[in-house]
Amino acid sequence: MKRVVTLAALALTSAALAEEGMWTLNDFPAARVKQKYGFAPDKQWLDHVRLSSVRLAGGCSASLVSARGLVMTNHHCAHSCIEQLSTPKRDLVSAGLHAREPKEEVRCPEVEVNQLVEITDVTARITAATKGLSGKAFNDAQKSEMSKVEKECATSDAVRCDVVTLYRGGKYDLYKYRRYQDVRLVFAPELAIAFFGGDPDNFMFPRWDLDVAFLRVYEGGKPLQAGHFFRFSEAGPKGEELVFVSGHPGGTSRLLTVAQLEFERDLRLPRALLWLAEMRGYLTQFQTKSAEHKRIANTWLFGVENSLKALKGRHRALLGRTLIEHRAAEEKSLEAKVQADPKLKEAYGDAWPTIAGALERHRPIYVRHQMLEGARAFLSEQAGVARTLVRAADELSKKNEERLREYADSKLPALKQGLFSPAPIYDELEAATLTFSLTKLREELGPDDPIVRKVLGDRSPAELARLLVKGTRLKEVKVRKALFDGGKKAIEASADPMIKLMREIDAEARAVRAKYEDEVEAPLKLGGEKLARAMFEVYGTSIYPDATFTLRLSYGQVKGWTEEGREVAPFTDFAGLFRRATGREPFALPRSWLSAKDRLNPESRLDFAASTDIIGGNSGSPVVNKDAEVVGLVFDGNIHSLGGDYGFDESLNRTVAVHSQAILEALEKVYGARRVLEELRPPAGPKAGAP
Amino acid sequence: MKRVVTLAALALTSAALAEEGMWTLNDFPAARVKQKYGFAPDKQWLDHVRLSSVRLAGGCSASLVSARGLVMTNHHCAHSCIEQLSTPKRDLVSAGLHAREPKEEVRCPEVEVNQLVEITDVTARITAATKGLSGKAFNDAQKSEMSKVEKECATSDAVRCDVVTLYRGGKYDLYKYRRYQDVRLVFAPELAIAFFGGDPDNFMFPRWDLDVAFLRVYEGGKPLQAGHFFRFSEAGPKGEELVFVSGHPGGTSRLLTVAQLEFERDLRLPRALLWLAEMRGYLTQFQTKSAEHKRIANTWLFGVENSLKALKGRHRALLGRTLIEHRAAEEKSLEAKVQADPKLKEAYGDAWPTIAGALERHRPIYVRHQMLEGARAFLSEQAGVARTLVRAADELSKKNEERLREYADSKLPALKQGLFSPAPIYDELEAATLTFSLTKLREELGPDDPIVRKVLGDRSPAELARLLVKGTRLKEVKVRKALFDGGKKAIEASADPMIKLMREIDAEARAVRAKYEDEVEAPLKLGGEKLARAMFEVYGTSIYPDATFTLRLSYGQVKGWTEEGREVAPFTDFAGLFRRATGREPFALPRSWLSAKDRLNPESRLDFAASTDIIGGNSGSPVVNKDAEVVGLVFDGNIHSLGGDYGFDESLNRTVAVHSQAILEALEKVYGARRVLEELRPPAGPKAGAP
Repeated sequence: MKRVVTLAALALTSAALAEEGMWTLNDFPAARVKQKYGFAPDKQWLDHVRLSSVRLAGGCSASLVSARGLVMTNHHCAHSCIEQLSTPKRDLVSAGLHAREPKEEVRCPEVEVNQLVEITDVTARITAATKGLSGKAFNDAQKSEMSKVEKECATSDAVRCDVVTLYRGGKYDLYKYRRYQDVRLVFAPELAIAFFGGDPDNFMFPRWDLDVAFLRVYEGGKPLQAGHFFRFSEAGPKGEELVFVSGHPGGTSRLLTVAQLEFERDLRLPRALLWLAEMRGYLTQFQTKSAEHKRIANTWLFGVENSLKALKGRHRALLGRTLIEHRAAEEKSLEAKVQADPKLKEAYGDAWPTIAGALERHRPIYVRHQMLEGARAFLSEQAGVARTLVRAADELSKKNEERLREYADSKLPALKQGLFSPAPIYDELEAATLTFSLTKLREELGPDDPIVRKVLGDRSPAELARLLVKGTRLKEVKVRKALFDGGKKAIEASADPMIKLMREIDAEARAVRAKYEDEVEAPLKLGGEKLARAMFEVYGTSIYPDATFTLRLSYGQVKGWTEEGREVAPFTDFAGLFRRATGREPFALPRSWLSAKDRLNPESRLDFAASTDIIGGNSGSPVVNKDAEVVGLVFDGNIHSLGGDYGFDESLNRTVAVHSQAILEALEKVYGARRVLEELRPPAGPKAGAP
Repeated sequence: MKRVVTLAALALTSAALAEEGMWTLNDFPAARVKQKYGFAPDKQWLDHVRLSSVRLAGGCSASLVSARGLVMTNHHCAHSCIEQLSTPKRDLVSAGLHAREPKEEVRCPEVEVNQLVEITDVTARITAATKGLSGKAFNDAQKSEMSKVEKECATSDAVRCDVVTLYRGGKYDLYKYRRYQDVRLVFAPELAIAFFGGDPDNFMFPRWDLDVAFLRVYEGGKPLQAGHFFRFSEAGPKGEELVFVSGHPGGTSRLLTVAQLEFERDLRLPRALLWLAEMRGYLTQFQTKSAEHKRIANTWLFGVENSLKALKGRHRALLGRTLIEHRAAEEKSLEAKVQADPKLKEAYGDAWPTIAGALERHRPIYVRHQMLEGARAFLSEQAGVARTLVRAADELSKKNEERLREYADSKLPALKQGLFSPAPIYDELEAATLTFSLTKLREELGPDDPIVRKVLGDRSPAELARLLVKGTRLKEVKVRKALFDGGKKAIEASADPMIKLMREIDAEARAVRAKYEDEVEAPLKLGGEKLARAMFEVYGTSIYPDATFTLRLSYGQVKGWTEEGREVAPFTDFAGLFRRATGREPFALPRSWLSAKDRLNPESRLDFAASTDIIGGNSGSPVVNKDAEVVGLVFDGNIHSLGGDYGFDESLNRTVAVHSQAILEALEKVYGARRVLEELRPPAGPKAGAP
């Protein structure tokens, strides 16, 4: 990463035409787009795009692409559903799936789709509740007010309401969604083509993946009648064409202070990377034990490798000196302006020491917090279920606004979907991940720490893991339901070893969480709010907030880049795919593709790159043209985009997407997926005006 | 690490009585020891200690402890020999071994013992050879001269001669050793007590390990008649007693520039750590496949976990700001003095930019160099053998001083011992480590790199690894011998797939090595030489050189330390061991100990801590008192000592050693190892004057 253009720099420069920015849809810089491309999205266009875009609550983006509730997303976003619907005898991950009639569309156990219907500014109400407070009082008051606001908004389980913290507390908006939990799997290609090139090619471009899957939203047991959806472009985009990405970037750190960036660089990222690397080695060998071991650990391993590569890229960006030095200069300039103005100084002058102090208090509890409260020590589906059951018994007996935030009334529908999911749980994998994480508990806190002694006693991590997995009955949904409905009494009476373990460590876990929230989180929020307000006062509000896994719109062009004097072209084609195939994983094409080779147009475009600003969470986002037609499907960023967490470099950062032409061509000629095609190409034919 | 006292600081302060320093035996600061402790080692004492100390050429320290060539070292230093002498049916690692008669003493396939007999200053000769040169010419001239000097010295295979670079080139000394390659295993306890506490307790104190093993040096097929050896102290040391550690610290980085430390912190260490973490996870799961998988991977996993923990500690030391900030201040001060004096400026002024420039050229080739030349891409015993055979065929046809340094005549005895070792090689482990490393090759250089394509072709890493392991015959020592003796012709004609692979990549590997040596190594040496000379001129020579895996003497006291207000006592005892035992690995005591419990004195001391300055490579060093009696056996450092690579903090850094009392007590009461005991307690009884 050679050149870093960051937010503040953008606000300061007059040539502010960089494509940087993940903009909220109620504050989109239409004029700026118009100035550069001669096209300004109007309110109608933005509303249509917003209502056609959806979020997969588990962490991805998606879009409605037919009047009958067809939803397009990435294969890797639907991967866990595809795995959950598989059996040892019918592995849909490797075989793919195409529902040839409606009854073959099977419900995903854990997918929730959210459609953003309204945004309301609630800044005044939230800040009034915390006025003059700090530490625990600040935190309690803020969380309580947020839970209240959300409960008033969420009038039924079909409505989801989240108070979203923007600009690190500069603004609070209430996001109201239509919630759909009956979502069914319609089409998925084989993993081998969806993730062709595997980990070696991940975050790389050129690329040759068909990372697509189709789901369908049901309402009242019937396909959703979608009022808004994106039409499909047959031709896809041309080089240099203006495109938009409408999706849900998960999070960025572009407004962090230098102290926070150093915390990331020196503590959080190195620790996370080592954990991921070890887990990767562990799962890689686990997978060699049998075909079934391979199958059941695939989703896990993909997640681990994906995070590992992504965080490596982020870490590299922070280790390069330019980024932090640049940010330090910006920070110094802002701080000087604040200190020079008595009013600003009085209001915001202590923002930096407040944040730095919080980080100093974070360091000594970082590991303990992560292990006990972050559940890094108890890595298993069933341990997670046990934690939720134990906590729900306590929390649900409290008033809504006094609960831990994740047990507030407005959060319960999502919590229950996960808790009562019938998705399969595999003993072998549970025991392996528990052994790994209990070993880490002992390693990180030391064998003599009282909580480690309490958890392990005389047992080894492997021995305890086996006892827990063998003894628990939490795999059965009805057992979970009984414990949930039975409340505190049922939990206290339970002899289930997972429940017992989570019960025994709960006080310690809550204690370190409270310490973290009161002494770290609260001052970070308070400091963040002050910083944001200082920035607004000094630079105005023409900046976008850090990503928060809420709907954002980016714009840019279809284009490649230049790297060490070498041009990277923006498109790949089918011919390139066949040239690259070796017959061996992860470069092995599925049989369907090998036998369709002669029917396919070798010049058909497969993937493309664009200069839109995206980040993790944007996976599954539609790429649309100015006619709001789908021209592509975001599934990745290039290697340079990994530093995008901290700053956007227009010359190098690229979105990587599947070309709309490739999707149509493959559905037709490889899969004969007529049902899906008919919905994507409604009888009227391709809309006039498509390029 | 709160306080860092570094070399230059030491040289600058008048209160230079810190116990810091790994001193060469021909330049020991006896006066300083006398000033503090009233005892000054004289020449006779130093010569006796030098000749009683030995090195295990593979990377550990040891000592002669009887007139019949008995050698004491750590179990973990003899671990690979113990494993190599084991079979699936007779696992000496877990069962331990005690040779009850001479014929039960079996030869270790790969152990070489070196006894330092002479040190000669050859600085003038080496520097004369490189005068006025730089880059490749400098490097070639220096290496050639070193090979010449060594060859002249090494008059037979029983003599080993190494030119040692001290003070980064401030001084070159010729170290002449007596070399012994017939070394046999005499006694080893069970791994469970040698490494009680396992990885969780590694680098920790208090500690309860009996990390000891005894070997015997043979000469002409008979036990060596040792002219010098250490007597054993029955009582061991008292608290606060003055003690010495005589051993072979492997390497330190206390003379590196800030630029070099940042290179360590931001590139070398993070990369090494991720590699080790992944390998650890990989081997951990590999071991769960069967008891035999566990056995054959034990040594590997121990090495990986040990390095991982050690490097984590080092990285932590560099991430803390104090150390680098302190070093930067020292560097600035030295540089200012150099720049202020025209003569110094002319001679040494470009040392810093020379070093910084070398690092900049290192970065872009770092990974390729490590993969291809460092053989990180081809991790297997047999691939290593193949590399040596392929290279030997080329190199041995050249004149001695034109060869790659590791093929110089003086290096051949050690090379041949490794090459023709009959130690067992395990296909399963070979295939696993090769798969791992070939996957890394593809990951690091990318699937489209020509060398990756050349190596893998269409095959997956796992597939190629299986083909190589299945096809090679290099497991057979006679095949290796034939290829070695057959020279270039035999190598070129060989169809062995490992030989073929190493042949095919050799040009590429040599190319990146040459680039590294000419453009990185040479300027680093040149810059290092200049820096060292500048330091000598500014501060005088009362400083010790960085460790170089040559004999050094440290001094200090038996003592604990204070940590966050808590006192850590210097001794542990047998009672503590039994209290800590859980019956589960790695806290499970072997049966021999459980049944000997009543016979053992619970108050007998087991391990202790001392303030001597050590580092990796010191494992196996004797701790001796001023009567030159063994009072302990170094086997570890505490967690703070891990930062010792960069600086020594007398208040926290501690050596961890087995107490001599514990060794005698265990040999007698747990193992009934009379043969060994009789040698350690010669008829005359304990020497008078022992405390």
